[in-house]
Amino acid sequence: MTEFTDALVDVVAATETALLKLIPENEGPEAQIFQAMRYSAMAGGKRLRPFLVIASADLFNVSRLCSERVAAAIEMIHTYSLIHDDLPAMDDDDFRRGELTCHLKFDEATAILAGDALLTLAFEILAHSDTHNSAKIRADLVLEISRAVGARGMVGGQMLDLVGEQSVFGKPEITRLQRMKTGALINCSCQAGAILGDASETQRHLLNAYAHDIGLAFQIVDDLLDIDGDPDELGKATNKDIKAGKATFVSLLGVERARVQAEILINQAIKNTESFGAKGNLLRDLARFVIERHN
Amino acid sequence: MTEFTDALVDVVAATETALLKLIPENEGPEAQIFQAMRYSAMAGGKRLRPFLVIASADLFNVSRLCSERVAAAIEMIHTYSLIHDDLPAMDDDDFRRGELTCHLKFDEATAILAGDALLTLAFEILAHSDTHNSAKIRADLVLEISRAVGARGMVGGQMLDLVGEQSVFGKPEITRLQRMKTGALINCSCQAGAILGDASETQRHLLNAYAHDIGLAFQIVDDLLDIDGDPDELGKATNKDIKAGKATFVSLLGVERARVQAEILINQAIKNTESFGAKGNLLRDLARFVIERHN
Repeated sequence: MTEFTDALVDVVAATETALLKLIPENEGPEAQIFQAMRYSAMAGGKRLRPFLVIASADLFNVSRLCSERVAAAIEMIHTYSLIHDDLPAMDDDDFRRGELTCHLKFDEATAILAGDALLTLAFEILAHSDTHNSAKIRADLVLEISRAVGARGMVGGQMLDLVGEQSVFGKPEITRLQRMKTGALINCSCQAGAILGDASETQRHLLNAYAHDIGLAFQIVDDLLDIDGDPDELGKATNKDIKAGKATFVSLLGVERARVQAEILINQAIKNTESFGAKGNLLRDLARFVIERHN
Repeated sequence: MTEFTDALVDVVAATETALLKLIPENEGPEAQIFQAMRYSAMAGGKRLRPFLVIASADLFNVSRLCSERVAAAIEMIHTYSLIHDDLPAMDDDDFRRGELTCHLKFDEATAILAGDALLTLAFEILAHSDTHNSAKIRADLVLEISRAVGARGMVGGQMLDLVGEQSVFGKPEITRLQRMKTGALINCSCQAGAILGDASETQRHLLNAYAHDIGLAFQIVDDLLDIDGDPDELGKATNKDIKAGKATFVSLLGVERARVQAEILINQAIKNTESFGAKGNLLRDLARFVIERHN
């Protein structure tokens, strides 16, 4: 796994360099919006979605100059979703990755606007000719990603999470919630790599299946960590779902069956990368990493 | 002006038809996000920005099928900005156009998410091939509009409005605030029409100057209406700026000089449309409408 660990470190560094370069600075009285964007975007994290963009694009020999910009744009969208989800009117979280959430570090208005600005900046980056010289590819990226993160995807998933009577949710409803709230952005990270690489329909289907499986496995592992993870290592409180009376994969299946389910999904994901040969190594290693992680 | 009044009514109807068609419906437990999107998007308004998109695109004989989609996308962005600006953490407004604001009709979380979803949907529409068959034009629309409404434009303007010590703002600072907060979206509405019409650089400059002037005049008239408008006709409270101790064009210039300034701007705007000949009639009529309006 050394090669994989190196690749992970590389992606984190490249993503953070891109984020710092792409989030503008400003000395005006409104400077705090830029500070808040930067604070939340640079607050750590595994950079899973950037890794998926870059590893998927690598399958098709896409220039890293292109894939790193798209990776940063998708990470901005992920960051915006976390800022808004943490707000008092939503999940009301005080800490994220061991740091104060944006609305506590700054204030609520700044957090709302910084989230709005990160989402908007992501689309600006995707549409810019520096991202790819084909306008068709740029428009396709905007279309794919906006579909994934709107009301029928990520944002709708957050709505569902807030209003759904999760105590009565069964496995189909929990699966739908996961697909929308976290799966859609994970999925479109792989699809963004495929779009950059002008992948065939078959290749896009394989990446779709791969992302679908690791997204679900990622959520199951999250639910397991919420029960038996180390709050210090996680940088956030545990047992939140149980306290909130929320149904999760673990509350529905039990710890053992949930773990087995995650392993089945990871093996399926790995199978779907076989036709990419050695170029699929990073995606395969990532799949194993998803299930072995401790935070 | 009968022709103009008819045109205004037509644009309102076409925009509302497009909004209803483009904002999806859904029967899931998360349905309220779609209801909130629709509630705020359909809550009336002059549809000034759609009018500017369509009238600008008409200069270049763009199909209404294209310009009405772009008009609806820009109106969604305008609606999202109003929903977020009205939130308790921001301007904390209870009424908008005589109706309950989104967070009071629904709740704060739903309002935040409905705003997010409208912004995202706007970019989805712009990037979709139904909007234009040229991917270059679609990518250019996304780029132009995302720049206008991000942290260096509309959203930054709202931040400035919230944090700027407006009591000490002079005319240059108030002008910068207006350009960002309301001018940027008005401007890019005209530019969107020009992009759809593949306008020349000169034509784009003329439209830019036109939009710049009517945007500023629109704001001055807003400030005047805040002082001597009819709250019932406006559908919102008046004297808000004075109560908040905010500097405005009117507090800086006085009522009479502000009115003269608005008239100068409108005449300048009209001058900038001359080279479009009879095709520029709608834009000229709109400029006169901006200064004569009572709400």
